[in-house]
Amino acid sequence: MFDCIIIGAGPAGLTAAIYLIRKKLKILVLTQKIGGQILDGPLMENYPGFEKISGAEWVQKVRAQAEKLGTEIKEGVEVKKITKNNGGFEIEGQGFEKLLAKSVLIASGKRARKLNVPGEEKLLGKGISTCITCDGPLFRDKTVAVIGGGNSAIAAALELEKYAAKVYILNLGAELAGEEVRIDQIKKSPKIEVIPQAKTMAVFGDSLVSGLKYQDLQTKEEKELKCAGIFVEIGWVPSTEYLKGFVELTPLGEIKIDNNGATNVAGVFAAGDVTWGKYKQTVIACGEGAKAALGVWDYLMGKSETRNR
Amino acid sequence: MFDCIIIGAGPAGLTAAIYLIRKKLKILVLTQKIGGQILDGPLMENYPGFEKISGAEWVQKVRAQAEKLGTEIKEGVEVKKITKNNGGFEIEGQGFEKLLAKSVLIASGKRARKLNVPGEEKLLGKGISTCITCDGPLFRDKTVAVIGGGNSAIAAALELEKYAAKVYILNLGAELAGEEVRIDQIKKSPKIEVIPQAKTMAVFGDSLVSGLKYQDLQTKEEKELKCAGIFVEIGWVPSTEYLKGFVELTPLGEIKIDNNGATNVAGVFAAGDVTWGKYKQTVIACGEGAKAALGVWDYLMGKSETRNR
Repeated sequence: MFDCIIIGAGPAGLTAAIYLIRKKLKILVLTQKIGGQILDGPLMENYPGFEKISGAEWVQKVRAQAEKLGTEIKEGVEVKKITKNNGGFEIEGQGFEKLLAKSVLIASGKRARKLNVPGEEKLLGKGISTCITCDGPLFRDKTVAVIGGGNSAIAAALELEKYAAKVYILNLGAELAGEEVRIDQIKKSPKIEVIPQAKTMAVFGDSLVSGLKYQDLQTKEEKELKCAGIFVEIGWVPSTEYLKGFVELTPLGEIKIDNNGATNVAGVFAAGDVTWGKYKQTVIACGEGAKAALGVWDYLMGKSETRNR
Repeated sequence: MFDCIIIGAGPAGLTAAIYLIRKKLKILVLTQKIGGQILDGPLMENYPGFEKISGAEWVQKVRAQAEKLGTEIKEGVEVKKITKNNGGFEIEGQGFEKLLAKSVLIASGKRARKLNVPGEEKLLGKGISTCITCDGPLFRDKTVAVIGGGNSAIAAALELEKYAAKVYILNLGAELAGEEVRIDQIKKSPKIEVIPQAKTMAVFGDSLVSGLKYQDLQTKEEKELKCAGIFVEIGWVPSTEYLKGFVELTPLGEIKIDNNGATNVAGVFAAGDVTWGKYKQTVIACGEGAKAALGVWDYLMGKSETRNR
């Protein structure tokens, strides 16, 4: 029986682990991928303590910090189901035997939303990318398409401008939605062309992406666009499918928590991008991870049997 | 007219500054002391990204990060009054001329509670300390008293044990309240002696502390204790005197905020230890500082005149 099982090893999960392991609790972290989406993020300039640091470098440091304190992290596993079980919780999934814990801290984050069009599944990682930092430089002197119309689509296009010969932005809406300064940069760029009201219909390519088909929502006309790369920047979905019916979620699937990271189920806490918090940022996820961990501690202390471990 | 004036330059205020200056806003940070109470804290092992870092070193890094981005910090000043003034706020205080801002972000933190006994004012910094890390090593082979009975008193006593010849803990209560493991360490120490139900009445000394007087609450007897150092570890008070009648405070004087750092006054946000958040930690204060800054940004964006700066 673990004192706490942490699901997810992004900023929130790793920070929670640091806090709980320092309390000498018996904990385990379950995760598909250590670091999670921060690995795909751009260089951070707003994490206090580092003028500039990549997500990958940050994860490496924080993972080492957690592990040095004694944290055990099981990577490559997926939680499928959590159920209440007299006073504790039963956790089942892929890649591990059924586990028992007195408390659960959910920090499973969010993941990039998919297009759900023909060709996407086949060509993901073969020209279709959701990680501009990882894959942007691969498209030097090529034509690429960015799909989306918000801040992350804008940022991706401006970064691709540095490498690519030509950058199309396929925006479902009529106008880009983002910081004016950056929209101005887009407008001024000779390399970037915005195609408004464009709905992506399919992605083509044999072993690699060769182009896509979209519908012009104004004229209803279907058009083809040749490109070597496609960056999908249409938002995120919280990784909470396995939690339906277990904890209270918003209509968007985010976990409802109170100010101290508690969900509606006693003994279950949540932190980071998986929750309904308005602002998704690394340092915010860390802060919430610490809060939820201290919530777990207080919860366990209320149950006096763990008091003197 | 500033877009935002930040009050306080501890973890919350500095993080907020980093976030707001990167939005190209016109901001100013007002503070009595850059870093605030974190300067007095022990080595941190739970700030994600650094295995071990002192509060002072952390502040130096984060201050440099904020200043390099263009943040202006006015140190050695004290805000005395904030008033609403058609659509913005007027900020008055000591060490600066009256300032105007469209929004205010309060991160003025908390400070050590005082004993309020004769001799304290005179001998503060002359043997009376609230900073174990700063002043502990000064009392090598001396007798010292720690006043308090909670986690910080326990931590102070255990740290002083390394230097001092003898450590008394004067606890107002009958029992120490803290982690069992550490209370055990206290009990086992040949150097540390706990005096329960002891109420400090006065501190003696000419140019330096020479002792104190306390009342034994059980016998009502007044006793004297010779000591060279006194560490006051009886909790903290939020620095919000200047906010009474301006924003909603709890009975303890902490600022009530919502999940996104907003106070009850539109345009006024708060973050960190000055708020009613249950858990006071550096990384939590940073996360809250980022949230409040993004709240300020959204607030300013709602006012379209700042949209295109």
